[in-house]
Amino acid sequence: MINARIGNRLFFETRPIHVTIWNEYVQEKTDVKVANIYPNGIHKTIMGGLEPYGFRIMTATLEQPEHGLTEEVLNHTDVLIWWGHLAHDQVSDEIVERVYKRVLQGMGLIVLHSAHLSKLFRKLMGTTCDLKWREDAEKERLWVVDPAHPITEGIGPYFELQHEEMYGEFFDIPAPNELIFVSWFQGGEVFRSGCTFFRGLGKIFYFRPGHEAYPTYHNKDVLRVIANAVRWAASAHGAIPVYGNAKALEN
Amino acid sequence: MINARIGNRLFFETRPIHVTIWNEYVQEKTDVKVANIYPNGIHKTIMGGLEPYGFRIMTATLEQPEHGLTEEVLNHTDVLIWWGHLAHDQVSDEIVERVYKRVLQGMGLIVLHSAHLSKLFRKLMGTTCDLKWREDAEKERLWVVDPAHPITEGIGPYFELQHEEMYGEFFDIPAPNELIFVSWFQGGEVFRSGCTFFRGLGKIFYFRPGHEAYPTYHNKDVLRVIANAVRWAASAHGAIPVYGNAKALEN
Amino acid sequence: MINARIGNRLFFETRPIHVTIWNEYVQEKTDVKVANIYPNGIHKTIMGGLEPYGFRIMTATLEQPEHGLTEEVLNHTDVLIWWGHLAHDQVSDEIVERVYKRVLQGMGLIVLHSAHLSKLFRKLMGTTCDLKWREDAEKERLWVVDPAHPITEGIGPYFELQHEEMYGEFFDIPAPNELIFVSWFQGGEVFRSGCTFFRGLGKIFYFRPGHEAYPTYHNKDVLRVIANAVRWAASAHGAIPVYGNAKALEN
Amino acid sequence: MINARIGNRLFFETRPIHVTIWNEYVQEKTDVKVANIYPNGIHKTIMGGLEPYGFRIMTATLEQPEHGLTEEVLNHTDVLIWWGHLAHDQVSDEIVERVYKRVLQGMGLIVLHSAHLSKLFRKLMGTTCDLKWREDAEKERLWVVDPAHPITEGIGPYFELQHEEMYGEFFDIPAPNELIFVSWFQGGEVFRSGCTFFRGLGKIFYFRPGHEAYPTYHNKDVLRVIANAVRWAASAHGAIPVYGNAKALEN
Repeated sequence: MINARIGNRLFFETRPIHVTIWNEYVQEKTDVKVANIYPNGIHKTIMGGLEPYGFRIMTATLEQPEHGLTEEVLNHTDVLIWWGHLAHDQVSDEIVERVYKRVLQGMGLIVLHSAHLSKLFRKLMGTTCDLKWREDAEKERLWVVDPAHPITEGIGPYFELQHEEMYGEFFDIPAPNELIFVSWFQGGEVFRSGCTFFRGLGKIFYFRPGHEAYPTYHNKDVLRVIANAVRWAASAHGAIPVYGNAKALEN
Repeated sequence: MINARIGNRLFFETRPIHVTIWNEYVQEKTDVKVANIYPNGIHKTIMGGLEPYGFRIMTATLEQPEHGLTEEVLNHTDVLIWWGHLAHDQVSDEIVERVYKRVLQGMGLIVLHSAHLSKLFRKLMGTTCDLKWREDAEKERLWVVDPAHPITEGIGPYFELQHEEMYGEFFDIPAPNELIFVSWFQGGEVFRSGCTFFRGLGKIFYFRPGHEAYPTYHNKDVLRVIANAVRWAASAHGAIPVYGNAKALEN
Repeated sequence: MINARIGNRLFFETRPIHVTIWNEYVQEKTDVKVANIYPNGIHKTIMGGLEPYGFRIMTATLEQPEHGLTEEVLNHTDVLIWWGHLAHDQVSDEIVERVYKRVLQGMGLIVLHSAHLSKLFRKLMGTTCDLKWREDAEKERLWVVDPAHPITEGIGPYFELQHEEMYGEFFDIPAPNELIFVSWFQGGEVFRSGCTFFRGLGKIFYFRPGHEAYPTYHNKDVLRVIANAVRWAASAHGAIPVYGNAKALEN
Repeated sequence: MINARIGNRLFFETRPIHVTIWNEYVQEKTDVKVANIYPNGIHKTIMGGLEPYGFRIMTATLEQPEHGLTEEVLNHTDVLIWWGHLAHDQVSDEIVERVYKRVLQGMGLIVLHSAHLSKLFRKLMGTTCDLKWREDAEKERLWVVDPAHPITEGIGPYFELQHEEMYGEFFDIPAPNELIFVSWFQGGEVFRSGCTFFRGLGKIFYFRPGHEAYPTYHNKDVLRVIANAVRWAASAHGAIPVYGNAKALEN
């Protein structure tokens, strides 16, 4: 599996990871404050921030036909990143079902911030995914509570965001498979900010930061976590399960 | 909290646990083989089997108005037991939604055998809940893999069912919070047969055995596990969470 | 199993839960500040606080023969509560081994505050159990992140301690089976403050609060959590496992 | 991070993964039957089997000075594979402590078969790690119960070993972070055969198969699982935690 050696250096050929960044892309076009921070949309900022990591990145938005998430796009997506806030209800059930099935069949999924209330995430979790919130430009400090996890590579014991929306417990999700970040908020709350979930063959990472009114997706730690999560969510998986009636393997 | 002492004996007053056993109750009326085993329906057999445990038990079936699961019934139910097989699609979405909400608000739920494909369980799990199966009257041996759990009280290292339908892995569920039983099948398969899940305030137990063509719900170990699970699922929980916009607790 | 009915009221006879509270009991005798808060020792304060819950409570301390933890005492203990801080090294390895074995055989264990570094807890966890700390009389707010759990009964969405020692992440423990409380600290840290672990047949609860210089064990929420944890840790379990060479169950 | 492109092909430079395979290497020298299967020792067979995967592999054995596990060796080991059976007690406590510390600091560890009773694994688990067993050359079928996990890459829904020693539940380990394989045995038992554990920064995989009297480590599925586990256990992790007294981050 080593494809080249140059002296002591080893090179592996690698299938590039295909990432699709989906954004509802509403507030960036209607709210000056948001537009100033994300002039081309949150999706384009994240795309730019992930550029150094060598992924092959596309974007898709709500307004496109099929919300940009055609069968072909999904079939060529290893990891889907999802940001939504105001327009969850405008995402068609048919597309949600299509994406949902692809996740169960092995597509990675990174759910950002207010997408906790997206139809897709709620369907995958089976709970309300509700929480407490406050928009007060307060400080958030994200603590690593699972430093063994590859999603924490390159991150110190914690990192800070000077201005963020607060999300507070209780966060109505199933207990995550792995809890990776816990947030401290200036106003007195805590939150399980980085959570992994396995569903079918799909690996899901929920990552809390990213209110549209703050420059969170310009932050290098935030981008590093997302890039790490892309690699983790794109990692190999086993055979597609076979279901249904089965003959005995023994007499 | 001790309400009476007689010599060294202590008595606690206890709120009785209200159990509702829901059964689609179709095959018992249409299939002679099933009717011979469960002449009054699976629900009545389970009700009889749980009688010695001191629960207050009601039953409800598909054919009743609102499938017997009115708001009033659910509000007086601590733990709901659910058996379904052929008629999952006939359960109305409205009732599923009602039961689902009660689970998230703290009602316990015990999901039996083929109810893995019920709308309710699939909605709570967020996955297909699909599996492999074979109806061949083969031997199942359920091994305890978490003997610390109260659901295993009174059960030995394993127990056997001489004739059962086989359910085999991969079982498409989220990783359970606790894995309590693993089944061995004569034909060569294994299955995660006893699984707990916490969803919102609700405690859920999936328990595999119980094909309608075999006398499984007459088995004392099976009944003991269900009774243990009722107690576990009815156990106390914390305050109902408050969601939404929240003022800062700190300046 | 119902032992008495009086009108609509049900009474169950219940085996009383035998609790032993172990305390190293050093600083209460040597530090005036601590003595003023816990004049008879932390163990006696906790014993008094648990009195209304109907447990049968004994105490044991380091200075007693066998540290008060004879075979007979342990054999009559359903749940052991452990507080230690300065004298972990003075606890004999033989007694640690004895207690450890009883936990694996089903005795419940509640590990309080600085006992995270006790020989017993570290042996059960298999990790260093190290953490960050600061003694600065700061505010701690404990948030419930698993309101379905019986340990949270009677507790609101959070509770506060005005003055506590800070413990901060990373807390070097295995991922807990259940994460129940997460603490917010005034100085900017978070901590996984309430964690359950199953080991063998034993149920273990680690509960963070309780620095000797603050009146934490006079707090009613803290006492309620400990009482809830006693009941949870004393709950039923399955059969004692059989190990070793085993004959085939099938031909 | 992409180091070369040739047309559409991408090449990444990769730090090679350094693997050390430790074997007590006793029975291969004293038991003709074992020697016939593993003439140069189990470690050499595994080394050969992993050769195609591009790791840099060393071996170490009990009889070497410091059991071959010097500080230097460990500092250059990304993943340690451990096989032991008869000589657990001959491994010095000092070396166990050294390896243990390296695991907590991030070295991956793969624990094979009878090494469940090694000092190292028991210390990391905090439990007895005991189990049931039978040496009767019976069939084992390993079922994948977590096909999303990278350790299952290239493995079908199950794989079989015609002759293996039986290990049966209850296996006295903490609940694994991830349960990946469950074994079915001809004689009627089941076993949690592939389990991951995170401890400190270290990723641990316990993998059941590999009795010395059978050619298990010549099996391509077994080797594939071990190779997958090496990659998983060598994956990135976060910053080394800082412990101890800490200044406040907030005023």
